[in-house]
Amino acid sequence: MQLYGYWRSSAAYRVRIALNLKQLSYDNLPVHLIKNGGEQHSDRYKLLNPAELVPTLIDDGLTLNQSLAIIEYLDEVYPEPSLLPQEPAARALVRALALDIACDIHPLNNLRVLQYLTGPLAINEAQKLQWITHWLSTGFAGLERRLQDTAGQFSVGDEITLADLCLVPQVYNAQRFALDMSAYPTISSVHHHCQQLAAFALAAPEQQPDAQ
Amino acid sequence: MQLYGYWRSSAAYRVRIALNLKQLSYDNLPVHLIKNGGEQHSDRYKLLNPAELVPTLIDDGLTLNQSLAIIEYLDEVYPEPSLLPQEPAARALVRALALDIACDIHPLNNLRVLQYLTGPLAINEAQKLQWITHWLSTGFAGLERRLQDTAGQFSVGDEITLADLCLVPQVYNAQRFALDMSAYPTISSVHHHCQQLAAFALAAPEQQPDAQ
Repeated sequence: MQLYGYWRSSAAYRVRIALNLKQLSYDNLPVHLIKNGGEQHSDRYKLLNPAELVPTLIDDGLTLNQSLAIIEYLDEVYPEPSLLPQEPAARALVRALALDIACDIHPLNNLRVLQYLTGPLAINEAQKLQWITHWLSTGFAGLERRLQDTAGQFSVGDEITLADLCLVPQVYNAQRFALDMSAYPTISSVHHHCQQLAAFALAAPEQQPDAQ
Repeated sequence: MQLYGYWRSSAAYRVRIALNLKQLSYDNLPVHLIKNGGEQHSDRYKLLNPAELVPTLIDDGLTLNQSLAIIEYLDEVYPEPSLLPQEPAARALVRALALDIACDIHPLNNLRVLQYLTGPLAINEAQKLQWITHWLSTGFAGLERRLQDTAGQFSVGDEITLADLCLVPQVYNAQRFALDMSAYPTISSVHHHCQQLAAFALAAPEQQPDAQ
């Protein structure tokens, strides 16, 4: 397998955790999102991923994009350990928690959005941090309330699920922007338990070959 | 079943299409996203959905949120007609197209984001339209290239899938903001074929009891 990603991309980070949990080896192929105007916009990369975003995973000649679609694919083709429960209601809960992050928090603070805010919309650095903090704290407030009902060691009980693969990169992102995590004890606890596992620790941005 | 939604919400619109395709009857419970500062922020609604977003679906005492998680749940519990192919690679393709819209286009032009841009960030109406158009055209450009490889009558071949349930509401949104669709002939063709079906037509915002 080949994973085209970027060390700090939350979406690539999710896929790295999944690959590690399933003990699937892969070539880590960095796509630098800033250098040369962004390598994700190169003609070569656009052929792999017309959305010009990371990650892209190649498995057995198959080109896959969108981190959650990639992880569900991996879970179907390489089912051990499973990242989703078996029962439909529990699967819906896990997927909803993952999407709470992947649809309603992460896209708003993505690099390309921040670049548009500070570029064409010309907002200043203080406004940019206010924007980032607003969407993180709004999203984490709802997530914290939901996890209070569902979490054990991990987001849903005591098994690792897709929800945890989204939570850990989002907390990494929040810490990077110095969000005060004291209002989110359940999110913090889940994050702490995940970080004890090698599959999560080795997927961390700083552990990647393209980390700066 | 009870569906808490809003006539113009793309996410609620996706779920309405799924319910119609599966011929599942439901009570349509409008949550007005603007009136009274937004009914989604009421104490009563927050108990159902701590993220204070629509839709929320109640099925047999189960409270479900996130449109894509709801639709996957419906597809698992009420499998006819199926909204995902059987084969993992094809499922990944359909999910990726759905997420291209649900993660990378829709959240950026959502009501709460536009409210934040025109409120705290004080951008003007021309800048707001520029923002909307930028993310629509960026997202549609990538989607058009992908659909050129995958589409038949619908997004993936000639069967309705989850991807179509995301595409149609996003095109509705684009038309509302007068996006020039001439650059996206494949998206337009898929949209046209979907609109011929009653399940899509009856799910349209203007057909809802809370339409204004």
